[in-house]
Amino acid sequence: MRLQNWRSILGRVWLFGFIFATGTASAQNGDYRPYLDVATKIIDRALEERRAYSMLRELAVGIGPRLSGSPEAAAAVEWGRQKLVQVGADSVWLQPVMVPRWVRGDVEEAEVVQSGIVGDYPLTVCALGGSIGTPEMGVVGEVIEVHDFDELARLGKNAVAGKIVFFNRPMDPTERHTFMAYRGAVNQRTRGAAEAAQYGAIAVLVRSMTTRLDDVPHTGGMRYIDGIPKIPAAAISTLDAEFLSRLLKQERRVRVRLRLSCKTLPDVPSANVIGEIRGSEKPDEIIVIGGHLDSWDKGQGAHDDGAGVVQSIEALRLLNALGLLPKRTIRVVLFMNEENGLRGGREYARVALEKGWKHVAAIESDRGGFTPRGFSVDAPPMTVEKLGRWAYLFEQIEAGVIRRGGGGADISPLKRQGVPTIGLMVDSHRYFDYHHSDNDTFDKVNERELELGAAMLAILSYVLAQEGI
Amino acid sequence: MRLQNWRSILGRVWLFGFIFATGTASAQNGDYRPYLDVATKIIDRALEERRAYSMLRELAVGIGPRLSGSPEAAAAVEWGRQKLVQVGADSVWLQPVMVPRWVRGDVEEAEVVQSGIVGDYPLTVCALGGSIGTPEMGVVGEVIEVHDFDELARLGKNAVAGKIVFFNRPMDPTERHTFMAYRGAVNQRTRGAAEAAQYGAIAVLVRSMTTRLDDVPHTGGMRYIDGIPKIPAAAISTLDAEFLSRLLKQERRVRVRLRLSCKTLPDVPSANVIGEIRGSEKPDEIIVIGGHLDSWDKGQGAHDDGAGVVQSIEALRLLNALGLLPKRTIRVVLFMNEENGLRGGREYARVALEKGWKHVAAIESDRGGFTPRGFSVDAPPMTVEKLGRWAYLFEQIEAGVIRRGGGGADISPLKRQGVPTIGLMVDSHRYFDYHHSDNDTFDKVNERELELGAAMLAILSYVLAQEGI
Repeated sequence: MRLQNWRSILGRVWLFGFIFATGTASAQNGDYRPYLDVATKIIDRALEERRAYSMLRELAVGIGPRLSGSPEAAAAVEWGRQKLVQVGADSVWLQPVMVPRWVRGDVEEAEVVQSGIVGDYPLTVCALGGSIGTPEMGVVGEVIEVHDFDELARLGKNAVAGKIVFFNRPMDPTERHTFMAYRGAVNQRTRGAAEAAQYGAIAVLVRSMTTRLDDVPHTGGMRYIDGIPKIPAAAISTLDAEFLSRLLKQERRVRVRLRLSCKTLPDVPSANVIGEIRGSEKPDEIIVIGGHLDSWDKGQGAHDDGAGVVQSIEALRLLNALGLLPKRTIRVVLFMNEENGLRGGREYARVALEKGWKHVAAIESDRGGFTPRGFSVDAPPMTVEKLGRWAYLFEQIEAGVIRRGGGGADISPLKRQGVPTIGLMVDSHRYFDYHHSDNDTFDKVNERELELGAAMLAILSYVLAQEGI
Repeated sequence: MRLQNWRSILGRVWLFGFIFATGTASAQNGDYRPYLDVATKIIDRALEERRAYSMLRELAVGIGPRLSGSPEAAAAVEWGRQKLVQVGADSVWLQPVMVPRWVRGDVEEAEVVQSGIVGDYPLTVCALGGSIGTPEMGVVGEVIEVHDFDELARLGKNAVAGKIVFFNRPMDPTERHTFMAYRGAVNQRTRGAAEAAQYGAIAVLVRSMTTRLDDVPHTGGMRYIDGIPKIPAAAISTLDAEFLSRLLKQERRVRVRLRLSCKTLPDVPSANVIGEIRGSEKPDEIIVIGGHLDSWDKGQGAHDDGAGVVQSIEALRLLNALGLLPKRTIRVVLFMNEENGLRGGREYARVALEKGWKHVAAIESDRGGFTPRGFSVDAPPMTVEKLGRWAYLFEQIEAGVIRRGGGGADISPLKRQGVPTIGLMVDSHRYFDYHHSDNDTFDKVNERELELGAAMLAILSYVLAQEGI
């Protein structure tokens, strides 16, 4: 696009349309719309000062990936503590929690062995988080492709025993929201090893959870089930999943060697990082905003969930910078160990119960630092409806969708205590391009989109601090 | 994010919320909602087959940047013709048009000369499209920073004559839509040279039109005014604009040397590429969908406007693939020379008038291949309102905003003939990160976001072909 004379004219028409639209949102039927001025100030300030972005650079590039229990995760805890002090939290503290310590090690490789068509052909794989390693020489086995657990069960022990099971059900590209596609495919990753081991499989390869065809593997959590043998589990890139599937159609028999050096070490001490602005009138009533400080060990954990962490800190800074003193307490919680254990989220909820903390709501940002669309609320319909009355605050950035939906992983243990949990909803199309892979780096984050998420958290937490639910 | 047991439960809640929300959109008050099934099929097919993305690879990576009059632009014309034949247009033809031929040449450099603090310091610049070059040894002059034409006028000839004028007004970061910020800054680029030359300036440096701080210059069109001397004009990267501005605050006097080898050659023949599905009942009534085939010579013209080109072609393919035969004619127009002349758009409108073509509407995609949000309509309020009744077709992908606004550059000459023009609206935050620069490459385009834009064009053009406006 460019701009010439005629465009100025069009632009004015467009400007008119824009003002008209937002004007409608802000003064429909001449209603008084409380907090709209506050929301506008917060958004202006966020876009003008853009501090979340520079904080994300420190966390994602400066510290890098920060898997639970790693030195980088420890550095992130100290970084988060300092940031919360810097942005003016009244009090900042660490909440100790023991976390799992899984390490990838140096070796993760797979190759097609002695195929009739190709020679040894390397496959791009990585260990799934929590997987056991293989013997040093690897495991070698014939590959059998399946698409779901029913197909696996139909094949049964005779077909599966001694083999490497290759789970190759793609995320459904026609899902309008990529999270729905993720939900439809991710049980292959989380439960595939345990399911396959029941039938005597010796390892599993799982098609990476991404909507793209790309050449990097996407890791993520997997779990073993007590009483079922533990077998090694690796993600394979979607391009190599397609290759392997084609090869299986051409060949009677395809054998693969898989080598993984990953292992689980003893638990180590870590912490949630907490900082708050104490409420001026009802300090005992708390609104939590947060994200998770840990990430996978691939990429830089920029979208998942560096974004949510810096947005939460920036939300607090914005409120302070604008002199907005909340009546209720706004508490930032940077949770530890969301990715492979949820220990931080559980510990926070446990302590909350023990100490009788009264939570008005808990808001999490953990869907990437993309353009905000609104909030999803996990609460009874009446609560969702009440929150929906604030939608006009977000319409000036076209993020006024407030509907029933999930809150977030870290705050889910609070939900079981009856706390309404709320998730920041964002444009979802790009998320799984980056998710849990080397692609999740700082340069994939757009400054404006990230900052708008911080503004969303600041606005909603402030309004809830003033008005309750 | 990850998924565990509790998440399945949350997910179901979320799923419920999602179905509830779209269900509402599709059957509010139990209304019959025509074409909703068609829209759903088109979106499914677009997301499933993803052909726009592979076409964009051919155009942006295979052919590359394609400035009007270049061999690459000629290749793009032939490519476009073949594609339209391949996707099953009833007839495909080229509409000849003469286009300007501006070439950048090998040299574009600038440096700070003999500053007290730094030695010769290179600045990242590029010629603005249409600029004259400098003498081979460059032009050297003291730099004077201004922010708008009023400030320039206040300084006047005494302060400006013999100097290099440095326009340094940033795009306003607080604008909610980046196009508004662009509008507020771009006159420095389009008219800066002519304005400065009035006061005797010898060259201009213009802060790049981007919302980011980055180290690449963003080019774009500029125009001279008859009777005012032509002086060289270059864009400077935003990072170097910040540097130069700081330097000017520290130093009494900063001199810069600018060398540009760009020049304008004689016009050359080129063409708009046109392909259509002839209407079965009212073939003489035409709905145009299109984008522009030319691009700047930086990057690959992927978002601007490779995206609009492939979306238009893919829209036709989708309709054919689904056996949707339009009652009125749907015509894809791939316009030539949007960026530096608009010759293609003007020629199309001229021929339309000459031949008495009857256009129902013209729809353009030229705001990048990002997540669609809806359509902006440049037409009388009643037409906007009528089109707004189709919003429900797009709500399943949260792109149901239909409001008054600009249509598009290439179709603006049709607008002057009274044709309603319509622009695909998309999420705008990232656009100016890439716009007119080396950053505008294929890898910056997300497959899903791009394909959804194609679906939007297919749905709206089909509905208008069946129903008129």
